[in-house]
Amino acid sequence: MSITAPAGFVAAGTSCGTKRSGELDLALVATDDARAVPAAGVFTTNLAAAAPVVVSRAHLKSRGGHAAAVVVSSGNANAATGLQGLADAERICALAGGGLGVEPSEVLVCQTGLIGVAMSMAPIETGMAPLVSARAAGAEAAGRAAEAMMTTDTFRKEVVVEGRGFRVGGMAKGAAMLSPHMELPDVFAHATMLAVLTTDARCGPSDLAAALAGAVDSTFNRMTLDGCTSTNDTVVALASGRGDVLPGPGELAAALERACGQLAEMMAADGEGATKLAKVLVTGAASDVEAYRAARKVAESALVKCSLNGEDPYWGRVVSELGSAGVAFEIDRVEVAFGGTVVCRRGVAAEHDPEMVRAHMKQRSLKITCDLGMGSSIATVLTCDLGHGYIDENRTTS
Amino acid sequence: MSITAPAGFVAAGTSCGTKRSGELDLALVATDDARAVPAAGVFTTNLAAAAPVVVSRAHLKSRGGHAAAVVVSSGNANAATGLQGLADAERICALAGGGLGVEPSEVLVCQTGLIGVAMSMAPIETGMAPLVSARAAGAEAAGRAAEAMMTTDTFRKEVVVEGRGFRVGGMAKGAAMLSPHMELPDVFAHATMLAVLTTDARCGPSDLAAALAGAVDSTFNRMTLDGCTSTNDTVVALASGRGDVLPGPGELAAALERACGQLAEMMAADGEGATKLAKVLVTGAASDVEAYRAARKVAESALVKCSLNGEDPYWGRVVSELGSAGVAFEIDRVEVAFGGTVVCRRGVAAEHDPEMVRAHMKQRSLKITCDLGMGSSIATVLTCDLGHGYIDENRTTS
Repeated sequence: MSITAPAGFVAAGTSCGTKRSGELDLALVATDDARAVPAAGVFTTNLAAAAPVVVSRAHLKSRGGHAAAVVVSSGNANAATGLQGLADAERICALAGGGLGVEPSEVLVCQTGLIGVAMSMAPIETGMAPLVSARAAGAEAAGRAAEAMMTTDTFRKEVVVEGRGFRVGGMAKGAAMLSPHMELPDVFAHATMLAVLTTDARCGPSDLAAALAGAVDSTFNRMTLDGCTSTNDTVVALASGRGDVLPGPGELAAALERACGQLAEMMAADGEGATKLAKVLVTGAASDVEAYRAARKVAESALVKCSLNGEDPYWGRVVSELGSAGVAFEIDRVEVAFGGTVVCRRGVAAEHDPEMVRAHMKQRSLKITCDLGMGSSIATVLTCDLGHGYIDENRTTS
Repeated sequence: MSITAPAGFVAAGTSCGTKRSGELDLALVATDDARAVPAAGVFTTNLAAAAPVVVSRAHLKSRGGHAAAVVVSSGNANAATGLQGLADAERICALAGGGLGVEPSEVLVCQTGLIGVAMSMAPIETGMAPLVSARAAGAEAAGRAAEAMMTTDTFRKEVVVEGRGFRVGGMAKGAAMLSPHMELPDVFAHATMLAVLTTDARCGPSDLAAALAGAVDSTFNRMTLDGCTSTNDTVVALASGRGDVLPGPGELAAALERACGQLAEMMAADGEGATKLAKVLVTGAASDVEAYRAARKVAESALVKCSLNGEDPYWGRVVSELGSAGVAFEIDRVEVAFGGTVVCRRGVAAEHDPEMVRAHMKQRSLKITCDLGMGSSIATVLTCDLGHGYIDENRTTS
């Protein structure tokens, strides 16, 4: 079900030919009655923002936080494509709007794929009508939409979260260029990651925007696969308001956060070439910002990620990253644990059972805990290992 | 000759057993008359600074910028080793000082290798006397010293620069954890990289310190292999004053900069697993700091580095990094060239001869030029590609 699990939404996914492989490459999520509903978006902070980012942001603004549909196209990012790229993104909205019977500005658009290549619009021109006609409720349509978002993803990323009297559904893609850094206050976080969320909760546009911003801040923005902030990162949410219950304060935010958190874990686990998913937890930092910065520095470290790939609990690299993270740090206070086994205490090697650590490092899901001993702030950042697969995937685009 | 090319210096390199492989692992550079001479050092900004960094910094300070010798030990970084590590680093200086007939505080020490492992001092206790006895002028001794610095380096890094009436000699190591970020004013740059420089120029400690800081700022700090700032980065210089000529203002600085620049290029070319050396030149930035920040963002990008490994001129990734570098940026002003062939103009694909670019990408030494069109500031950062070799080298420490 995922994206169509909340009442009021339909979805579809087709192959229009943007991807030469013939895989699904065009997705649609829309309200089932061609009505614009409260909508919110969080977009990349990259100043080379792609045309779909520019267009979706403008559409949301012009409609005061309302939208009736989201189109997702994969195979071409439509980034670094100039004015033609903007016209192409607008044309996609117009095509979808025409088919659905809504205004073009009530349509949001997300794109992912190669940067710097002019869109070939013919496939989308011919593919949009069948896409719109294929829209349906139910799991199959939702699944096809989720599949059509994928680029180098190896599996579909879908989620359904049950709130008290409402549901949140979501789908996402993202496997590299993944270090979302989205436009949130006081957040310097960073993927091409795209996520579309739906809910039948009753809420206004500003409540939805606040809840989505909080959810993105504590999930997608706490994940880094390669430290590269995409030109196309986008998370959008639509709220049909079909539920019977008005969620209590925080209830919608909590449900969105759970949905985004699960999608983020799927993304990290599906990092290009990844064989390990790792949670880096920093505790005892002097401030929340410092906790986050330190966790991100460890999570983005090429050397730490290589060690994870080799299942090597080389904590010296972790300490080195903490020391160069630009946060309050005193080496004789630092403690590092792998899977709960303390390997470094007060900045030096701690006696421990190497078998415990070895067994943990063989797991698929790893946990590195770093206590700075400087305060009481905590942050978690998700990452993955760095292996041959990432390089093989990214050496060439052809 | 390298480190012994300037008049007044002797060197040696031995295998004492810190490296289990039996390779050379202990080096010495000293004045030939056991006299302390003007000396300067630039050290890592990593707050988890290794014991040798702490000790060398203190020795330089206590002697008002004078030293008689530098010991370099490879195989163990003596970092995250607590108070025992400090005592061990001091003991190394005392052993060398004893052999040479100088005060322990007139000896500087550099170490490189694994972090978080207590030093095994026995090899150094027994190895120091033969090392000191082996000290000699001439190319062979200098070459052995340079070889004893190496860890994963695949070749010795030595340089000699001829000034007007004086010489500068140098040796260095560094292949990963290489993104020097040394303690210079207004510099946020980042390796384990170690470099020892000698000169027979006549100069005082403060002139030497200023000249060295400038040289490091424009060379080692403009290089990033993996974005990881080591706990041990150190550049030290000793000036014997044996030359006949007092160098004119800027002459010593220029010679040190040439020496450091050549050593930095050797390091980048010898990056672990590297098959390409790349110069990222940013022009048209709004300020010097922004030019540097933008060049470093491109140079540190895992995705850009994978493209270099695949000889793929995927400029979209370059534009994306520029857009997320935190600098003034307008996509319709940006221009990107590979080897002088413009592939992106005003933010979109530029017509060009793909054969020209393909031929450039096959070279070992690549050049990526990015003009931001926002001002007149320029910066260059050296990097290398990211290939399987880097991962293989860093997966495990055993």
